[in-house]
Amino acid sequence: MRIGILGAGNVGGALARVWKGKGHEVMFGVPDARSERTEKAVAALGGAVRAGTNAEAAAFGETIALTVPWPAARQAIESCGNLAGKVQIDCTNPLAADLKGLTVGPNTSAGEQVAGWARGARVVKAFNTIGAGNLGRADFAGLAADGFYCGDDAAAKAIAKGLIADAGLNPVDVGPLRNARLLEPLAMLWIDLAVNQGWGINHAFKLLRR
Amino acid sequence: MRIGILGAGNVGGALARVWKGKGHEVMFGVPDARSERTEKAVAALGGAVRAGTNAEAAAFGETIALTVPWPAARQAIESCGNLAGKVQIDCTNPLAADLKGLTVGPNTSAGEQVAGWARGARVVKAFNTIGAGNLGRADFAGLAADGFYCGDDAAAKAIAKGLIADAGLNPVDVGPLRNARLLEPLAMLWIDLAVNQGWGINHAFKLLRR
Repeated sequence: MRIGILGAGNVGGALARVWKGKGHEVMFGVPDARSERTEKAVAALGGAVRAGTNAEAAAFGETIALTVPWPAARQAIESCGNLAGKVQIDCTNPLAADLKGLTVGPNTSAGEQVAGWARGARVVKAFNTIGAGNLGRADFAGLAADGFYCGDDAAAKAIAKGLIADAGLNPVDVGPLRNARLLEPLAMLWIDLAVNQGWGINHAFKLLRR
Repeated sequence: MRIGILGAGNVGGALARVWKGKGHEVMFGVPDARSERTEKAVAALGGAVRAGTNAEAAAFGETIALTVPWPAARQAIESCGNLAGKVQIDCTNPLAADLKGLTVGPNTSAGEQVAGWARGARVVKAFNTIGAGNLGRADFAGLAADGFYCGDDAAAKAIAKGLIADAGLNPVDVGPLRNARLLEPLAMLWIDLAVNQGWGINHAFKLLRR
């Protein structure tokens, strides 16, 4: 599959690495493809990934992953041009600057706001509840961390499910896109433990079943 | 330990059962100890548990568990009288009437509101992220469900930790009481899957570590 990744930071770089490793074609969308930061991200992947503008990455990808920091999300989407029919995977969390809370919610979510901006795209919330460093290495003492996702379009969710599994996570469908209102606080709990409680990145959520 | 349980519904009844089974002394605090509902809850425990007013249960317990529905929480606490020095375990979730969202948050939480009402008590948020039917039977294919808790008083948290383990849950300390802002949405996710997605009660969260 051809995937455009908006953002070439920790999350975007990690997703590019794991998806590339599974045979997908990846292109970063960035404000400046010749910036040192972007060249570093491309070099870290052995140069086997292209970088272009957001519009170029969006045109390239059948699926577009949004991995920029939340304050840059709206502009990144609006610079993509026509997203009709694309699968838009929203990986963002609307974090307060001090990393101690969310700036969106509880009666809406970043995921729903993204859907409002990405006209015509089929939005799936995913990859937001685990640290980027765990993508592709999500084994915790023999148990696979879960990759929670939600959305309103069944076909888009099926594609997201495959891409979640490609990252070594166990995909768990938690329902409609409005449940991004619950996945974003779950992400905040992961981040609070990681940053504010000093746990680092070696933890992950799993939903037990019986 | 002597424990007062405010409320004799699903959560209160289940906690009474598991704590009684571990040798604790339990007393329900209810609006009317002679109501059919309360007599049923006491009978379900073999009659080995007393019921009284909220004030009687609060005076009885070194630890007080709040298990009433959220709209009744403030009055239940205020009818307890002096709670100074007590450990107050808040098991509530501020659910919307349609069970599709929370009525408190994201910049405060039921747990913090309870702490404001229960003057002098040492509040711990716990037992809110799993269904009552899983208390005392929290084994999921060989893995123990987690019992997440948070609070600002280390001694009170140590007591809560023991009571969580008594319910068969693996206690996980997620930090200060303000993180009730994150445990309540986690509960909402559990409830949404149970009720709105039709999963029933056979799921539970676990935080993997490595």
